[in-house]
Order: sequence, then C-alpha cells, then structure tokens
Amino acid sequence: MAEISASAVRKLREQTGIGLMACKKALQETDGDIEKAVDFLRKQGMAAVEKRAGRDALEGLVTSYIHPGNRLGVLLEVNCETDFVARTDDFQQFAKDVAMHIAAEQPKAVDRESVDSSIIDHEREIYLEQAKNEGKPENIAEKIVTGRIEKFFQENCLLEQPFVKNSDQSIEDLVTELTSKVGEKITISRFSVFRLGEAS
Amino acid sequence: MAEISASAVRKLREQTGIGLMACKKALQETDGDIEKAVDFLRKQGMAAVEKRAGRDALEGLVTSYIHPGNRLGVLLEVNCETDFVARTDDFQQFAKDVAMHIAAEQPKAVDRESVDSSIIDHEREIYLEQAKNEGKPENIAEKIVTGRIEKFFQENCLLEQPFVKNSDQSIEDLVTELTSKVGEKITISRFSVFRLGEAS
Repeated sequence: MAEISASAVRKLREQTGIGLMACKKALQETDGDIEKAVDFLRKQGMAAVEKRAGRDALEGLVTSYIHPGNRLGVLLEVNCETDFVARTDDFQQFAKDVAMHIAAEQPKAVDRESVDSSIIDHEREIYLEQAKNEGKPENIAEKIVTGRIEKFFQENCLLEQPFVKNSDQSIEDLVTELTSKVGEKITISRFSVFRLGEAS
Repeated sequence: MAEISASAVRKLREQTGIGLMACKKALQETDGDIEKAVDFLRKQGMAAVEKRAGRDALEGLVTSYIHPGNRLGVLLEVNCETDFVARTDDFQQFAKDVAMHIAAEQPKAVDRESVDSSIIDHEREIYLEQAKNEGKPENIAEKIVTGRIEKFFQENCLLEQPFVKNSDQSIEDLVTELTSKVGEKITISRFSVFRLGEAS
C-alpha cells in the first residue's frame, strides 16, 4: 500500500471537508494523487465534495447531553456552513447522537491530530515497558508498541469509534453521510466530558 | 493590615470549605491565626464550618446551560458531600444559577489559584507596556500593574464576580450562603464554556 504523507491528507481534508480516515483511504486508492482522490470521493457518492472547497464551517450548534442522574455530562460543538442547515432536523439529530455517543464512549479527542502528545508519550512508555517485561527483543517491541498505539487511537478518537447506536458505522461515517446529505462541510470541533468527582 | 501567607489561606480553606476571599479576610481579622479565623467564620454565621473539616465534597451535580439559539453553552460541576443534598431544590437551583451566570459573564477560571499562570504573565506584560507608554517611572508602573492584575482577577474569577441575578452578592457569597444552609461543604469544581466558532 502506498505511503501517504500527512500533508497530503491535510490538504485533501481542507479541500473537501471529508474526515481523516476517508481522505487517507482515498489517497491510498489513488497513490497519493489529490486530484484523483477528490474524484474518488465524488465517485463514492460524496457528491457535495467539489462544492465545499475553501468554505469554512462556522455555523452550527453548541449542545449538551446530561446523563440521567446528573453524574455525567457532555458539552459539544458541531459545525456546518449555514444557519439554515444548523436548524434542520438532520443536523440537530446528528448533534444529539454525537453528544450521547461521547457520554457513552468517552473518547479522549476528536481525531488523532488533537490527541495531546503527552498522552501518547505516556502510553508509548507503558507499552514499551510491557513489551520489555514480556522479554521481547527491541525490534519486535517497537512493532508491538506501534500496534498498540494504533489501537489506542482507534479506541480513543471520536471519529474512529463505532457509533453506539449502529456499530457498523464509525462517527466519521456519520459525518460523511450528513455532509453528502446536506451539501455542506460538517465538522465536530470540540467537546468536554465531566464525570462527577473526576475533576483534576 | 497583616500579611497573610498563601499556605495559611489554603489550610483554612481545606479545613472549612469556605472560599478564598472569605478565608483571607478572616485571617486578616485574626492576624493570621487559623484557629481564631475558624471562630471568626463561625461567628459570622457560618455555623457549618466546624462540621466540615476534612470531609470531601465528592457528590454533587454535572449540569449544563445552553443559551437559546444554541450558540453558547456551559458545562458545570458543583459538589457537595452527600447525594441527599445534591437532590435538594436549593442545590439544584444553585447549580442552575451558577451555570447561567457563567454563560452571561464568561469567567476565565473558578478562582485565582486556577487561573493559568501564562494568562497572568501575558496580562502583566501588556499592563507593564501600557504603563511605560504612559511615561510612568518604574516604581509607579509596578504599582499600576499590580492594581490592574488585581482588577483582572476580580473580573475574571467566577467566585469574585457579582452574581448576575443579584449584584449585591458575589458567587462566593452564594456558595457560603448555601454552605451555611445545608451544612455541607459546597464547591464549584470546574466549568467549560463553548461559544460557537471560537474553538481554538
């Protein structure tokens, strides 16, 4: 499989508003060619892709989900491009679903880029120690660590998590689906999770 | 007025659960004597003080306030000692009031101790430059900066802000009042404010 540079992925994301993993996959399919990757995404039914280039997602909603009992709460910002879309049932349902998903799964960040690097350093250290304690030689240990970090990202990045209401879809799939449906760039920009008594 | 050490204030706060400014004032009244300061607080009608020493406020509520229009939201954790108190109307109204106050006033932190020091450094630099540009001599400039930092704290620390629904009371007064009423340590432990489009 072709090695895809982070900058190509970023460029494609900016141009299309499509999520990280979908962009990466599109680039892998097209050997890293951004123009072809846009076509690839369009062919996949993401018809809205071309129209979105360069536009910002600055409208949207701030919403919350408070779990019954008031011991767990989520604050969430989701964005689209126009107030019109923000008011649609589809967008409001999306915001509601994502907030509830976050409460259930408690991801650490929206995507890989926004995971605090100190968290990764900390995890890497633990995994490396684990591999060493299992008596693995260094080159094997490195591979194990890489694999575990990959798994950590998959489990802790919101966009990569399977949606709690339908585990066949990732949250990123949900974003992509809505993007296609409403024809606007949709992003999940940030969230906070408070669990009672866990304040730092 | 007596110089009160930060550690004495912290100790008194831990012992009593009373807010920063009230503890500082009590210590100033008693020349820094913690035992006497506890008595001073009790005399002021904070009858619950003695009962709270050493107990943690680990029950409470996570609640939110979403301003109509969904462009501004607040997530808040307030704590008390028992689930019983957390369920009372008084405590729930308190949580609701504080969340709404935060949405209206957008404080930067709960109290002085939790203001990020980089924010203060940044403000100090600006104030110092301002004072210099006004042609003040260095010793005067320092005093001006100290005064402006004090004002910055007063304006940006939740506990020191006048309560939006009754500006005769600070939020700290509200906490103290509820503490006395329910006989448990009450704390505001953390909050998040999201304003649409302001994600960093």
